[in-house]
Amino acid sequence: MAITMYDLAGVEADRRFSPFCWRARMALAHKGLEVETVPWRFTETDKLPAPNEGRVPVIVDGDKVVHDSSAIADYLDVRYADRPSLFPGATARGLTKFVQNWTDTVLHIGVIRLVLMDIYAHTRPEHQEYFRSSREPRFGMSLEDVVKDRDTRLPAFRASLDPLRRTVERQPFVCGEAPAYADYIVFGAFQWARSISDFELLAVDDPVFAWRGRLLDLYGGLGRKSPGYGG
Amino acid sequence: MAITMYDLAGVEADRRFSPFCWRARMALAHKGLEVETVPWRFTETDKLPAPNEGRVPVIVDGDKVVHDSSAIADYLDVRYADRPSLFPGATARGLTKFVQNWTDTVLHIGVIRLVLMDIYAHTRPEHQEYFRSSREPRFGMSLEDVVKDRDTRLPAFRASLDPLRRTVERQPFVCGEAPAYADYIVFGAFQWARSISDFELLAVDDPVFAWRGRLLDLYGGLGRKSPGYGG
Repeated sequence: MAITMYDLAGVEADRRFSPFCWRARMALAHKGLEVETVPWRFTETDKLPAPNEGRVPVIVDGDKVVHDSSAIADYLDVRYADRPSLFPGATARGLTKFVQNWTDTVLHIGVIRLVLMDIYAHTRPEHQEYFRSSREPRFGMSLEDVVKDRDTRLPAFRASLDPLRRTVERQPFVCGEAPAYADYIVFGAFQWARSISDFELLAVDDPVFAWRGRLLDLYGGLGRKSPGYGG
Repeated sequence: MAITMYDLAGVEADRRFSPFCWRARMALAHKGLEVETVPWRFTETDKLPAPNEGRVPVIVDGDKVVHDSSAIADYLDVRYADRPSLFPGATARGLTKFVQNWTDTVLHIGVIRLVLMDIYAHTRPEHQEYFRSSREPRFGMSLEDVVKDRDTRLPAFRASLDPLRRTVERQPFVCGEAPAYADYIVFGAFQWARSISDFELLAVDDPVFAWRGRLLDLYGGLGRKSPGYGG
């Protein structure tokens, strides 16, 4: 039986834009597991299976419910230990946390300050007020003000990708010769932006652009086929 | 026969302050290999065994000369494959490159802008002019100007450590439960600063401070016993 995954959607049910859901989606594909996704919108907490924390991704695998992308990756790697590992080896598991923490504290912060209004624009009208009232206090300004100088800030954002850039210009994946969970963590951030924004985060001659292309092509083009903007 | 390692020193022969030499020194200790270090000063290129690129570390292992810290780590892991690996698994090797690139592009840049004059102060008088004339063009200003507002910039430096901080507050080492080469890469930057500067890079209640303490204690306190400042 296929695993069910609750996946963040916006106005259109098939436009999936949560970076954390993309981590889980790619992890499921890496494991070669069938999945049926259920589009889920901000605030629909009563539609999620228990236990949950009011956020997606949540997966249902038989009688097991797992929420939180990190917990899902850990669960899948133990439950389906006979399939390709998301963390090949204890050291890789430890190092993946460094990549995750870089993604959470540097990359996500950089991305959201460029595409915040694009997320808003792809959110259902009835959820826009929730989105605005929950996000504006975090930034201490209006959504419009967060992104208004984004062209000016783009070079600094691109410079902040140097650790990633140097890595993927010298090896095909963050994890080396083959992709694993750390690649999906970083990819989730770019897929988040790509699915809701036509703002060009990456120059086409950037090694990060080429790496993102390799990720978009994995698993039959799972990422590339998903509704989004740009290449 | 012990391996010989050419190791950067300053005014005092036993004060070893190259971050790249510390990577190699810790890698040798991780492998349980005996080493005899030879203090080497900036510009003494004629004293290095060939081949070299005019920089340290350089190691001599029997009739084999290896230069460059990354090449040394790779060499040791292959030549002494029966000893604890510096990169346990191909994925760990790939991910270590990400940590290395973060260290080289974020951490080293941050550190040097805080301690540059302290390096100068620990350099032999006859090498200070070399140091000044080679470094000032890189920064586009005098050594004194590079560090003059370092107190003001300290909070931003500490904030830049967030990916490292979040990692080592949730697991003992960058590599997880046990240290490996990625830990030594990051540690090298802190040991560089510690050996030549009394400027407090880290607050004592910072999880990074505690992690640095664990690294200082490894291998019989190899790092802690080396001449330096602070805790």
